[in-house]
Amino acid sequence: MGKVYLIGAGPGDPELLTLKAARLLARADVVLHDALVSDAVLAVISPAAEIINVGKRAGHKLLAQDEINALLVSHGRRRPEVVRLKGGDPTIFGRAGEEIEALRRAGIAYEIVPGISAALGAAAAAGISLTDRRVASQILLTTFSRGIDGSAMDWGCVTSTTTLVLYMPGADYAEVSERLLGGGLPANLPCVIVSRATGPQQQVRWSNVARLASEEKLPAPALLIVGRVASHEIEDLSAQFWDTNRKDPDLQQTSVS
Amino acid sequence: MGKVYLIGAGPGDPELLTLKAARLLARADVVLHDALVSDAVLAVISPAAEIINVGKRAGHKLLAQDEINALLVSHGRRRPEVVRLKGGDPTIFGRAGEEIEALRRAGIAYEIVPGISAALGAAAAAGISLTDRRVASQILLTTFSRGIDGSAMDWGCVTSTTTLVLYMPGADYAEVSERLLGGGLPANLPCVIVSRATGPQQQVRWSNVARLASEEKLPAPALLIVGRVASHEIEDLSAQFWDTNRKDPDLQQTSVS
Repeated sequence: MGKVYLIGAGPGDPELLTLKAARLLARADVVLHDALVSDAVLAVISPAAEIINVGKRAGHKLLAQDEINALLVSHGRRRPEVVRLKGGDPTIFGRAGEEIEALRRAGIAYEIVPGISAALGAAAAAGISLTDRRVASQILLTTFSRGIDGSAMDWGCVTSTTTLVLYMPGADYAEVSERLLGGGLPANLPCVIVSRATGPQQQVRWSNVARLASEEKLPAPALLIVGRVASHEIEDLSAQFWDTNRKDPDLQQTSVS
Repeated sequence: MGKVYLIGAGPGDPELLTLKAARLLARADVVLHDALVSDAVLAVISPAAEIINVGKRAGHKLLAQDEINALLVSHGRRRPEVVRLKGGDPTIFGRAGEEIEALRRAGIAYEIVPGISAALGAAAAAGISLTDRRVASQILLTTFSRGIDGSAMDWGCVTSTTTLVLYMPGADYAEVSERLLGGGLPANLPCVIVSRATGPQQQVRWSNVARLASEEKLPAPALLIVGRVASHEIEDLSAQFWDTNRKDPDLQQTSVS
């Protein structure tokens, strides 16, 4: 019986692998990876390892999560060191929960090796801090996916001091803009789209919630950071970015005083 | 004129440095680091480098942020490669925003090198996923610090499908428990405290929001993960963990039906 390592491949740049991830990849017996993992990261894997792309099989067909779970369990039973390699960090939007449960039920040892999540890679690429004592005291990492019960995402949680990080916003920026405005975010709140963060084709586009609708589309994978930190001119950003009709009583007070 | 690298040291284990961070530390001219950075990580720094602990000076006195900014600017003007080394990721609760602004104003080039943030290290240590299609669709990274305008943190943002990650919860678990309950979180919602994540003295304590009040205190640095993912038995966790009096209309519907 072996051990399965759930390893974060980071945002793209192979230099953003951790030392531990690089060491484990260099000696793995088998690596099951997502389609999102970059070729430069795959090049770090031991030449002796069996490499399985579970993001695609036979061209374009995706493996169902149950099939991936079953593959992990069967390899975990036969091979000493099995690596499940995921883009970013395995515990953030990576479906690690289901894989962990399958391994636990099968009695197979596992270990999570964290990676640089896309949000961290994107902030680094844009040269901004996700929190800032002056303008951002919390970070919400989310997607446009609906909740478990089918409800739309709850944007009521985003206050004027939240940095909103939207993973996989999709290519329809007009819809993204509309949903952000519909959620009560101010039209002139800054945002920044980071495409292919930390890779050689990285692009960074500075915008705001309203203007986003008409921005030129950037290639996937991309990530959107929304909030007062999403600007290099944060000293100028005051309560002006927050409408008084926003459901945020403390902020309303601030903008009135 | 040199360049200043804002580098994330990760949660403690030196193997969780990125390859890039390790490479830059091995050749830096000067490294300014926080008190939180582990000795094992400091051992990676070039023996020729000047190492400055800006977390403490003359025993116990802390440098003010303005003094750190000024040090970064003066070293950035004189030395080719200056490293500002921060625990975790530099852009999450690390005051990078103010340092970046000081460097930009002084016209000094900078680059952010992301690191494994404490939340990711803690999730890995606990062996759980921070998101899960079945029970957690978003992550809120926050602290108990008050907002810019002095207001208390807004817990209204936490829904039944949010994983709440509380950085630096402090040693008064009774107060933490009370604030979580006061924010509307269910008494039996699971949580896990991770102390000194990824280091040799790591401790993981499974609890829930009510029971947290009477848990034995764990050494700092610690981090608290609250939500349905904070359990290895997430299949059993259904709407039972969410009170019907919670301000979450969608969830109320679910628990009634």
